[in-house]
Amino acid sequence: MIYNFFMNNAAVIIIGNEILSGRTLDQNANFIAKRCSDIGIVLDEIRIIPDIQEVIKKVVINASNSHKNVFVTGGIGPTHDDITALSIAKAFKRRLVLNKKAKILLENHYKKSDFKLNESRMKMAYIPARASLIMNAVSAAPGFKIKNVWVMAGVPKIMQNMFINYVEPNLKKGNKIYTKDINIFKPEGDIAKFLSKLQSSMPDVEIGSYPFIKKGKPGTNIVLKATNLKFLTLIYKELVVFKKKH
Amino acid sequence: MIYNFFMNNAAVIIIGNEILSGRTLDQNANFIAKRCSDIGIVLDEIRIIPDIQEVIKKVVINASNSHKNVFVTGGIGPTHDDITALSIAKAFKRRLVLNKKAKILLENHYKKSDFKLNESRMKMAYIPARASLIMNAVSAAPGFKIKNVWVMAGVPKIMQNMFINYVEPNLKKGNKIYTKDINIFKPEGDIAKFLSKLQSSMPDVEIGSYPFIKKGKPGTNIVLKATNLKFLTLIYKELVVFKKKH
Repeated sequence: MIYNFFMNNAAVIIIGNEILSGRTLDQNANFIAKRCSDIGIVLDEIRIIPDIQEVIKKVVINASNSHKNVFVTGGIGPTHDDITALSIAKAFKRRLVLNKKAKILLENHYKKSDFKLNESRMKMAYIPARASLIMNAVSAAPGFKIKNVWVMAGVPKIMQNMFINYVEPNLKKGNKIYTKDINIFKPEGDIAKFLSKLQSSMPDVEIGSYPFIKKGKPGTNIVLKATNLKFLTLIYKELVVFKKKH
Repeated sequence: MIYNFFMNNAAVIIIGNEILSGRTLDQNANFIAKRCSDIGIVLDEIRIIPDIQEVIKKVVINASNSHKNVFVTGGIGPTHDDITALSIAKAFKRRLVLNKKAKILLENHYKKSDFKLNESRMKMAYIPARASLIMNAVSAAPGFKIKNVWVMAGVPKIMQNMFINYVEPNLKKGNKIYTKDINIFKPEGDIAKFLSKLQSSMPDVEIGSYPFIKKGKPGTNIVLKATNLKFLTLIYKELVVFKKKH
């Protein structure tokens, strides 16, 4: 990870006991990670934490203080184990209040639905005071933004909709991060010395080395990243030459 | 998450830029989470961090001080971006030394291999002083255990082999965590009130509520967890009755 990327950094916080127990394989962090890479935002931490108010408060505040953006998913539904909105309100010392706009969104949604807007569902209109809403085109119940913290649903389809339509368009893009990769059909151990020299020759290009096995034979996927396309192309060309020779 | 489970808790630390950039979907944390659940170890945090020495040092030491066990994966291969062993040695203020046993393991492995034990591969025999080895039946290069921190490979197949054969047998099992789940074919919002009352009636059983859509219809998967089987069964029976009625 290249340090000067850090100017536009972000953290992801996934809230949910179901991830920590292994019941659910989280894919939200990976989705957000990819989108961030595409717009030049460097994710420098992902944390997966339980549905415990004190933990949520502490982790969210720390992340808010140390990152430009924080993306939170999970725990904003209608049930007793959905405690994210309350926990984050408390983290920022704000009250959790009935948000008029959120109430109207839910009313309009449930008018056209087979289900009723009961007390449990109305809980989803309670949002920390002075937070702005993140729209949910799938099931109406909104997420919210408080300071630099974007709070989204845990259900992947809803989270993705929120992120693409209402979070990403409002993020400040970072420097474009160029990336290029190449497969060399030799095991890591045989090319490690060459890669190490290459990395030393050009600290501004991040060179990642990832082993793979294809048809029983070991190979290495080499991933280059840089904000400077010229530097990236130089290193890539050296790899192409090396690949041809070996 | 039930607080009294915390007596035998653990953290997982996944090291790797490739996860944070979205290139790779991490599945190691999920594997470890499931195995821990099965033996009564409560995972209360997963952190995914970059290949940066200062970050690794800080996060590993913090986790070591606040958890009974810490499981680390990634960054112990032969290339320049594999900095986990050195970083963890520094975290515990130990030297990184050539481990004689690890050297013999590698020598024996490469004798039978098409590849040579060169300088780059020998790097994998450098282990923090006074750490014990975690065997690797797949590709020989060992992981290691230092204090309460278990350091494993990032390649899933190798990590799983290490965990099942050399980590898990050495872990102190926690109280058995019983679990049972039931699908109710109603949306969360329609059963939230009932679930909330049920949870209040029995704080010792963790009741998790997870929405799903099946054949276009919304339902809720309810997951119960408890160390007391009697309590768990009581709550489960109430859910069965509720399901029949509604």
